[in-house]
Amino acid sequence: MSLAYKYQMLPVEKVFRDPVHNYIHVNHQVILDLINSKEVQRLRRIKQLGTSSFTFHGAEHSRFSHSLGVYEITRQICDIFKQTYSIEKIGEEGWDDSQRLIALCAALLHDIGHGPYSHTFEHIFHTDHEQITEAIITSPQTEVYQILNRVEAGFPEKVASVITKTYPNPQVVQMISSQIDADRMDYLLRDAYYTGTKYGTFDLTRILQMIRPCKSGIVFAMEGMHAVEDYIVSRYQMHIQVYFHPSSRGMEVGLEHLLNRAHELFFAEKEMFQNTAQLLIPFFRENFTLEDYLRLDDGVLNTAFNLWTEANDPVLNDLSRRFLNRKPLKSCRFEPETQENLIETMGHIVEKAGFNPNYYTAINSSYDLPYDFYQPKLEKHRTQIELQQNDGTLTELSQISQLVAALAGQEQGDHRFYFPKEMIDPKLQNDSDLFGETYRLFASHIHNGELI
Amino acid sequence: MSLAYKYQMLPVEKVFRDPVHNYIHVNHQVILDLINSKEVQRLRRIKQLGTSSFTFHGAEHSRFSHSLGVYEITRQICDIFKQTYSIEKIGEEGWDDSQRLIALCAALLHDIGHGPYSHTFEHIFHTDHEQITEAIITSPQTEVYQILNRVEAGFPEKVASVITKTYPNPQVVQMISSQIDADRMDYLLRDAYYTGTKYGTFDLTRILQMIRPCKSGIVFAMEGMHAVEDYIVSRYQMHIQVYFHPSSRGMEVGLEHLLNRAHELFFAEKEMFQNTAQLLIPFFRENFTLEDYLRLDDGVLNTAFNLWTEANDPVLNDLSRRFLNRKPLKSCRFEPETQENLIETMGHIVEKAGFNPNYYTAINSSYDLPYDFYQPKLEKHRTQIELQQNDGTLTELSQISQLVAALAGQEQGDHRFYFPKEMIDPKLQNDSDLFGETYRLFASHIHNGELI
Amino acid sequence: MSLAYKYQMLPVEKVFRDPVHNYIHVNHQVILDLINSKEVQRLRRIKQLGTSSFTFHGAEHSRFSHSLGVYEITRQICDIFKQTYSIEKIGEEGWDDSQRLIALCAALLHDIGHGPYSHTFEHIFHTDHEQITEAIITSPQTEVYQILNRVEAGFPEKVASVITKTYPNPQVVQMISSQIDADRMDYLLRDAYYTGTKYGTFDLTRILQMIRPCKSGIVFAMEGMHAVEDYIVSRYQMHIQVYFHPSSRGMEVGLEHLLNRAHELFFAEKEMFQNTAQLLIPFFRENFTLEDYLRLDDGVLNTAFNLWTEANDPVLNDLSRRFLNRKPLKSCRFEPETQENLIETMGHIVEKAGFNPNYYTAINSSYDLPYDFYQPKLEKHRTQIELQQNDGTLTELSQISQLVAALAGQEQGDHRFYFPKEMIDPKLQNDSDLFGETYRLFASHIHNGELI
Amino acid sequence: MSLAYKYQMLPVEKVFRDPVHNYIHVNHQVILDLINSKEVQRLRRIKQLGTSSFTFHGAEHSRFSHSLGVYEITRQICDIFKQTYSIEKIGEEGWDDSQRLIALCAALLHDIGHGPYSHTFEHIFHTDHEQITEAIITSPQTEVYQILNRVEAGFPEKVASVITKTYPNPQVVQMISSQIDADRMDYLLRDAYYTGTKYGTFDLTRILQMIRPCKSGIVFAMEGMHAVEDYIVSRYQMHIQVYFHPSSRGMEVGLEHLLNRAHELFFAEKEMFQNTAQLLIPFFRENFTLEDYLRLDDGVLNTAFNLWTEANDPVLNDLSRRFLNRKPLKSCRFEPETQENLIETMGHIVEKAGFNPNYYTAINSSYDLPYDFYQPKLEKHRTQIELQQNDGTLTELSQISQLVAALAGQEQGDHRFYFPKEMIDPKLQNDSDLFGETYRLFASHIHNGELI
Repeated sequence: MSLAYKYQMLPVEKVFRDPVHNYIHVNHQVILDLINSKEVQRLRRIKQLGTSSFTFHGAEHSRFSHSLGVYEITRQICDIFKQTYSIEKIGEEGWDDSQRLIALCAALLHDIGHGPYSHTFEHIFHTDHEQITEAIITSPQTEVYQILNRVEAGFPEKVASVITKTYPNPQVVQMISSQIDADRMDYLLRDAYYTGTKYGTFDLTRILQMIRPCKSGIVFAMEGMHAVEDYIVSRYQMHIQVYFHPSSRGMEVGLEHLLNRAHELFFAEKEMFQNTAQLLIPFFRENFTLEDYLRLDDGVLNTAFNLWTEANDPVLNDLSRRFLNRKPLKSCRFEPETQENLIETMGHIVEKAGFNPNYYTAINSSYDLPYDFYQPKLEKHRTQIELQQNDGTLTELSQISQLVAALAGQEQGDHRFYFPKEMIDPKLQNDSDLFGETYRLFASHIHNGELI
Repeated sequence: MSLAYKYQMLPVEKVFRDPVHNYIHVNHQVILDLINSKEVQRLRRIKQLGTSSFTFHGAEHSRFSHSLGVYEITRQICDIFKQTYSIEKIGEEGWDDSQRLIALCAALLHDIGHGPYSHTFEHIFHTDHEQITEAIITSPQTEVYQILNRVEAGFPEKVASVITKTYPNPQVVQMISSQIDADRMDYLLRDAYYTGTKYGTFDLTRILQMIRPCKSGIVFAMEGMHAVEDYIVSRYQMHIQVYFHPSSRGMEVGLEHLLNRAHELFFAEKEMFQNTAQLLIPFFRENFTLEDYLRLDDGVLNTAFNLWTEANDPVLNDLSRRFLNRKPLKSCRFEPETQENLIETMGHIVEKAGFNPNYYTAINSSYDLPYDFYQPKLEKHRTQIELQQNDGTLTELSQISQLVAALAGQEQGDHRFYFPKEMIDPKLQNDSDLFGETYRLFASHIHNGELI
Repeated sequence: MSLAYKYQMLPVEKVFRDPVHNYIHVNHQVILDLINSKEVQRLRRIKQLGTSSFTFHGAEHSRFSHSLGVYEITRQICDIFKQTYSIEKIGEEGWDDSQRLIALCAALLHDIGHGPYSHTFEHIFHTDHEQITEAIITSPQTEVYQILNRVEAGFPEKVASVITKTYPNPQVVQMISSQIDADRMDYLLRDAYYTGTKYGTFDLTRILQMIRPCKSGIVFAMEGMHAVEDYIVSRYQMHIQVYFHPSSRGMEVGLEHLLNRAHELFFAEKEMFQNTAQLLIPFFRENFTLEDYLRLDDGVLNTAFNLWTEANDPVLNDLSRRFLNRKPLKSCRFEPETQENLIETMGHIVEKAGFNPNYYTAINSSYDLPYDFYQPKLEKHRTQIELQQNDGTLTELSQISQLVAALAGQEQGDHRFYFPKEMIDPKLQNDSDLFGETYRLFASHIHNGELI
Repeated sequence: MSLAYKYQMLPVEKVFRDPVHNYIHVNHQVILDLINSKEVQRLRRIKQLGTSSFTFHGAEHSRFSHSLGVYEITRQICDIFKQTYSIEKIGEEGWDDSQRLIALCAALLHDIGHGPYSHTFEHIFHTDHEQITEAIITSPQTEVYQILNRVEAGFPEKVASVITKTYPNPQVVQMISSQIDADRMDYLLRDAYYTGTKYGTFDLTRILQMIRPCKSGIVFAMEGMHAVEDYIVSRYQMHIQVYFHPSSRGMEVGLEHLLNRAHELFFAEKEMFQNTAQLLIPFFRENFTLEDYLRLDDGVLNTAFNLWTEANDPVLNDLSRRFLNRKPLKSCRFEPETQENLIETMGHIVEKAGFNPNYYTAINSSYDLPYDFYQPKLEKHRTQIELQQNDGTLTELSQISQLVAALAGQEQGDHRFYFPKEMIDPKLQNDSDLFGETYRLFASHIHNGELI
């Protein structure tokens, strides 16, 4: 009689070469089967950083690579917990290794519901990648569900509950999502590696040496304080330098206008979309099935834009070309509380130059981007990072780190006004006619990168 | 009066963050304009390594990144040549820096004609990326042509002639294509970085210190021998370990079957392809324009496969799913000279198990893959690598390097027979019925990864 | 007629392999001659980090390596300044490349006056490495002087004045010493590399891209703000994690006791030192020549300690063994303002256990260590780091960086009380006799690493 | 009752930051005690690469760092063996984890008998670091012996027998010394890291994944062939590029002359050495105790040279200065079989120029250097590297690797004739007098770095 599926280990460990973790180690048959499922393979066709690769050309890695990475960090944490902090060794505060498989599955699947250009797409079509993640894991027709359900009845729901943070074991939940979890640790290191910036680098090995299970979840040994501090600083720097980069946001607002224009046109010109974007129609209708969603990827969207470069609608046509050929809107910083009127004025000038401001201007605030940031005061549900003294006492990180205290609870990022590059083209400003005057007027409102 | 276009330098150097070269430095307006052209931007949507990313998940980088890298290495060589070996300094053997712009343009554009899954696509549809590269550079309707032609009349043709190796200056030609050129140096380093293997690493800085112009092209100082030797060994290792990896080739032969099947079906079922692969039709017809070609990218092909997963034709349907969901054919090594009959037998067994061998088996020889390899004896047109003594004497590399001598002129790689994974599934072999017997028979012909 | 010495360039650039900068490039005959001088070669025999290598075993690099590194960064800054910001190009705010040689010499020689275990040695024997640096450069008997003087009369004095910051050109002075100079940038990167910590890493290339000469010295382009910020954070982290490490300081206070004891004994037992520490005698006498000083190195001190392990004086004997065999004093943090009496009590307990507190206890405050730290408010002579807007406006760094503001003007580090490891040995505490009681009493005053 | 010493584990794992392995992990009390012993601490004062750091200034690391590294690799092999290949799991071919402590001790102590500038010192004074290693481990007066003997009676001898390869368990022996052992793997990686060359890099993780115990010792899985091949190539390159570097050998022959001259003088001028080299006298007499030997380190030798720079003997004086101030002898390649007479002639010319050829010329053949090299045919006792097929069949590496076959059994390196730098000084050759003629004659015999 063969071993139950949940206990089946691969006869030989399977390794995947990974530039960030060197190797990803897989031992469970369940994990290998999940990796080979079509829903996980789909993540190969979705870039991790969306429009950021237009700014950092090296950052073309997919959500698939990241998902393997989160799995691998989680696996390493489980190993450390098992070896030194198991319940057998340190009692009920310790780690129960029968939780390992659920933690690994949740780690691997935590991003399974992401779609192409996730945040923009969601915004326009009112999808929600977190709900979809849950749906993929718990819907009987998916391969992922079928694999998980072979483990035991109810297992898919348990895995989903880790991701939605309702699973009763806080150690498992916090491994996957907390202020310092396997997800964030992988993406910081991975995004730093692929962009080629050095800001995201921190000492993962040291952090893993310092991680401790406790009754309320996960804490860190006090002597690891500076390693944790360094991680928080890295996170801050990656947000400021990479994730909030003005050019990437310029591509993102362009994409938003583009999808929006298509959505508007759909009701008038259904036929056109039948030929050019068949797989998008359920989303235009805002009436889609899980299967519809799982057929989306970056290539599907880009192919639609490709076909729309021949569209009769001049806005759709132009915005598609600008996106595919990387023509981001340009921007300047502004002060939302005092410059609302000025923004309106700027829109009028853009319009005078011949651009419909609805499609060619935008306001974008970087803390609006759904990359979360360390703000314990604002968002009460955040799990604090706590450090443990030799005698067991816990202290919240910002109490002992000046650097973290300087960042904690502070909104980071900036507010930007976006407009066509043409508006600040020196050649157009030199024209002696009326148009030249319009461009000169526009340019006069921008100084040292700020709206004035 | 403004400066001629060819001399226009950017007011501030533009840098692109690059994980391999740290930064890519752009100073010429012409180069920046080329990078921003739609033909170069298209390369962002074509993976550098095709199906290799199915094996090395980290290697999702595009031909765009590689093209910038080749440009950057070429720029560095020009700088070194100008500073130390200009014709002003060392006479006619030296470097004429008026050749710089043409070298930079050729470096940036050398891969501009690549399409999606280049080698497989070419094989099925009889396209030729080298011819197309030339066509893109010299056809008046492309943005690339228009930019180059602003430099001066005839400039596009000059740039193309560097790539086709008919340009009269051998230094410029060899920078871009020779046994040790900017192209190979960038892709080895880049593919090593993105796969996470260490084999491709060699000491680029040292090689660039040792590079010398001479009348017949480019040579290396004798004291750089071991750096060059190390580069050759790296190349060998990347071919054996990465480029010839059996699983990537298993995906490649699957892709070939898939495109082939679609091509066959096209003449019978034109309508189906109208809805699912509109942009591919000119290629099915083998009658395409340059514009048709420039609309292709990985996403266009993947989207067609995506739609074909619903096709009525069971082979097209199944092959599409296998490709998108990464189900490579498996393989074993064989000896072509003595095992031809056995291969035929194996095909019959596969057929007995229910798979049409035309679509589910394949023979693939890795030296057949169009990755070139160091074989100076076999291919006479190859430029030899030569090393220069202090007194100017030249010596061919394999004369003084035991390691290179061991590799020179030897075919590397292997011959593999591909078949469905099901054929070696232990569970199927355990069936006591006729099918079980078929599978057992098949498995009995494979031992230690070889056909017996 | 041959070229004047100052203009003599090497026929072929000489490169030194360097793990931090990849290669050190030398082009001037003057620089090569300085590197080959005996005073610079002596720096090979003096460790850069003194007792830190007892904690970070990898950090065994010498002041020689660091000096080459400072030279190399300075050379790169000069190249960038010459290429883009020369006085010919941007006027009097720009860089005058006739200053290059003086900058390079000052960079290479800035640490020439360091002795073995520099800070401790200075403290005991009242030497001053800065004065000695000046003396070495300007004393006719040194090889360094003779080389510099061949450049032109008065040149040695000019080089020395750069290091003492009295040279009139502030750009040259600030390259070598300011809050963000070639010295600090090299040692942070180098110490991080050799210790194997990642904290010291920052983006040197980016900082060098952003560096600008101006009339008052050196500033940075505004867009480089985060790179500069990251450098400051790295510096903070290296101080806290590496330079202020409690064990290294435990070795340092032990060394101080050891040298002190020898100094005390000298007047009584001159003969002993004649045989064991001949080269140290001038320093015991506090009457030494430059030549005496230049014969000191780490090996000379260690050899004396080696011979003293046979000394009749039990304190000298024991302290020598503890130092050579790496037995650091242990420590706990304390609060100097409120715990002065308690420190005295602890000393008494140590004495009761049989250790003379003069030689076996110490107080060490890490900001007392002569590693400077970012404190613009406290030390007015510090050159501020300033960032330059597009329109030329300057802003002081901490005005725009939250992270730097959090660190600026704050004393970092801690106060520690040092004592013999035996005092907290659990085995000794378990003795039931009087000694056991003494040890238990001592241990009861330490909790979570703090004195209570 | 407390646990036997051999089973005592540290309450908390102790880690040492290491730039090569990231962290060194220590769990056994025995290992920590050995590290803290004075014999192991002495290795901090002996450079791993001797005179190589005069060529590669970054390579100033000590034998202490290397010893920790060998320990760490051995520890990782034990972990892998225990987890997957223990005798409990795979039977008698497997790994018996009760061998772990002996393997770890032998790894840590394998170089304990090295002295300063080991190979040169041995050559002159007829010491033997392998015999001394054995003596240190098995002599009751050493701390190392006392620690090992606490483990159990006879344990020191067992540890020594692993190093002398007479221990009965071949797995343990081959971990520490074979063609691909923890020793070589650490020093290649470490020397590459510290020199800053990239040649020594290979994929340690992959090799450790492929390592397998077997009855006759250690083998590697066939799929790891290319990782092993890459290691062999790295070794070859490090020898050619680093270990055999002509300048380092130029310093080495100078050192040999220097020690030789002192040895000669000793019998005539004992008094001088009493004051300058007290710790060397037992070696001059060739009658030394283990204690005498353990007091030697690089600093002791350098301090003697330092004092000898004041010696009356002009040769000793000059050679000391040349060594301390890094003035290597220069060299050219020659052919020993045909150029013996010419070498003699060159010696006469050197003598004519005023240098005693006994102290200022030398012949040095790099394969004479005691760095071993892959030569299975020549030295029969070498353990072959064998690769294991899935079915257990073993194949010797050079049978299947073209690259290794090209290197196997071939002597590498070169023969060099060394002479004073002055002999090829262009300025001296320009003199019109007799001396000029001598120098010109000398120079005329050297062309392209070879003797003619």
